[in-house]
Amino acid sequence: LGLRGDSVHLGDDAAVLQPFAGEVVVSVDTAVLGLHLDADLFPLEDFGYKAVASALSDLAAMGAWPRAVVIGVTAPEGTDLEAVYRGVADAERDTDCPVVGGDLARGSELTLSVTVLGQCPGGGAVRRDRARAGDALVVTGPLGRAAAGLRRRREGAVLSDELVTAQRRPWPCLREGLAARGAGVHAMMDLSDGLGLDLHRMADASGVGFALDWVPVAQGASYDEAVSGGEDYELLIATDDPERLAMVFLDRGLDEPLVIGRVVADAATRTLRGEPFARRGWQHRL
Amino acid sequence: LGLRGDSVHLGDDAAVLQPFAGEVVVSVDTAVLGLHLDADLFPLEDFGYKAVASALSDLAAMGAWPRAVVIGVTAPEGTDLEAVYRGVADAERDTDCPVVGGDLARGSELTLSVTVLGQCPGGGAVRRDRARAGDALVVTGPLGRAAAGLRRRREGAVLSDELVTAQRRPWPCLREGLAARGAGVHAMMDLSDGLGLDLHRMADASGVGFALDWVPVAQGASYDEAVSGGEDYELLIATDDPERLAMVFLDRGLDEPLVIGRVVADAATRTLRGEPFARRGWQHRL
Repeated sequence: LGLRGDSVHLGDDAAVLQPFAGEVVVSVDTAVLGLHLDADLFPLEDFGYKAVASALSDLAAMGAWPRAVVIGVTAPEGTDLEAVYRGVADAERDTDCPVVGGDLARGSELTLSVTVLGQCPGGGAVRRDRARAGDALVVTGPLGRAAAGLRRRREGAVLSDELVTAQRRPWPCLREGLAARGAGVHAMMDLSDGLGLDLHRMADASGVGFALDWVPVAQGASYDEAVSGGEDYELLIATDDPERLAMVFLDRGLDEPLVIGRVVADAATRTLRGEPFARRGWQHRL
Repeated sequence: LGLRGDSVHLGDDAAVLQPFAGEVVVSVDTAVLGLHLDADLFPLEDFGYKAVASALSDLAAMGAWPRAVVIGVTAPEGTDLEAVYRGVADAERDTDCPVVGGDLARGSELTLSVTVLGQCPGGGAVRRDRARAGDALVVTGPLGRAAAGLRRRREGAVLSDELVTAQRRPWPCLREGLAARGAGVHAMMDLSDGLGLDLHRMADASGVGFALDWVPVAQGASYDEAVSGGEDYELLIATDDPERLAMVFLDRGLDEPLVIGRVVADAATRTLRGEPFARRGWQHRL
C-alpha cells in the first residue's frame, strides 16, 4: 500500500504515529467486492476509493479529525491490486488522511477491511444517542445522489456523469462533522444506509421520535432514492441551535445545512408531514 | 463482537477511547481460515484467538502497551461466529486488551482483519532497524514450540497437549516488549516467521550482519522447527546491555532472556558458530 507520512516508521512491525490530541476515535468497515461494488459497472479503483471514503465517513459522523487509515486486504491470485491501491491513494489525497499500514493475504475474494483512526481535540466526540425533544433535525445536503448514480450507471451513463460520480466517489463530510461538533450539536450520524433507516436508528438510540417537514431530494434523484437509497454519506444532525450551526457552516465555506424537521419526545411519533414515516432503507445482505 | 470497556461508546458510528499517552502504535493483520488455521485440526475458537494474539504481538515487538482491538470480519452464511468470538474473548481476557469495534460482512470465506492500537508512554517505540555492531542478540525464550505443536497435532496429539497449546494459543510477549523498551534496547521484532527469516530481516533493515553462538531449541521441538517453524512470537532483541535487560526482566518476574549471539558490522556475515546461517523460514503463501 502507498505508505506515507513523516510521522510514520515504515517497514516495521507496526506504524508509529505522533501523539493524538484528545480522545481517540476508531472504526472499522469491511468491503467485499460484489457485495459493496458491482465490478461489472465500476472499475476496481472505485472499490478502493469507496472502502476508504465510507470508513472515514464514520469519523465525520463523530466530529473527529482523521489521522490515519490501515487496511487489511484479502485478494485472489491475479487481482489487479495496483488498481485498487490507485483508488485508495485517490481517497488519501482527497481526504488528506494517510494510509499508514496494511496487510495482504491470499483469499478467495477481494475484501478490504479499513480501520480509521481520528482524534477529537478538546474532547466531545458526537454520539448518535443524544438527540433531545425540541432539537432541529438537519442534514448536510440533498439526498439520493448515490442511488440515482447507481441507477444511471445501470442505464448506461458514463463514469464521469455527475450522479454516477457521486456513487463512485462518495465524499465523507469531514469538515462538516468538525464544524458541527464545534457548534455543539447534540447528536450526529452519517446517512450511509439512507434517511429511512438511519433517522430511525438515531431516534431509537436517543429514545425519541421525530416529525419531518420534508425530505430534500437531490436533483436527478427520486424520492425513494433519497429516502432509502443509501450511500450518500451526508450527515444527520440534531441540534437546539440550527441558526448557530448554519452560521458556523457558512463561516467555514460549507454549504448551508438543511433543516428537515424536529425531534419530539414521544418515541412512537415518526412522521413526515403528519403521516407515518416507515423504517426502510438499504440493508446489508448479511 | 464482545464489546466492552468503560471508556468506549457502544453502538455508535465509531468507538471513542480516552486519550493515549505518547505515541500511537497501530498495526493490522489479516487471518484467512485455511491459510492461517487448518480447520480440520483446530476448533474455530483457535482461529479467533490466534488472529488477535498474533496481531497484538506486533505491538509487543514495538514495546507498545495495547489499548484496543478492532476486527473486520467476513464470513460465509452458516459460519459458527459464536465460536470465533469465544476465541476472541479468550484473547481479550488473556491480554487485558478490549475489542472496541467490529464490522461483519458476508463473504465466501472466513477472514478476520485485526487492527491493534497501542501507546508508548514516554515515546520511543522500538524499531527493528537500529541494531548496532557489538550488540548482543537476545530472544525471550526457546524456539520451535508452535511448529512442534502443529506436527504433534497432525500426529494425533490432543488439543490440551502442551506443545499443541503453544500452537493454538500463542502468547504475545507484551510484558517482555515493554520491559525491553524500558531497558533501552536498540532494536526489536517478533519471530512470527521464525529466526531463520526474521533475524535476516532485522539484519537487512539495520544494515548489519550477525554471528550466532547457538539456537535455543524448545523441549520437544526439532532444530528445524526452532529455526524455520515460525508462529512462536518470541521477541528478538538487539541490545548493548544484556545484563541490564536480564535484570529488568527478572525484576518484573519475566523469564531470563537468552543471549544467542551478537551483531557484527559486516552485513554479509550471517553465521551460526562460524558456518553460514541461511535465510529460511515460514513464508506466507501469497
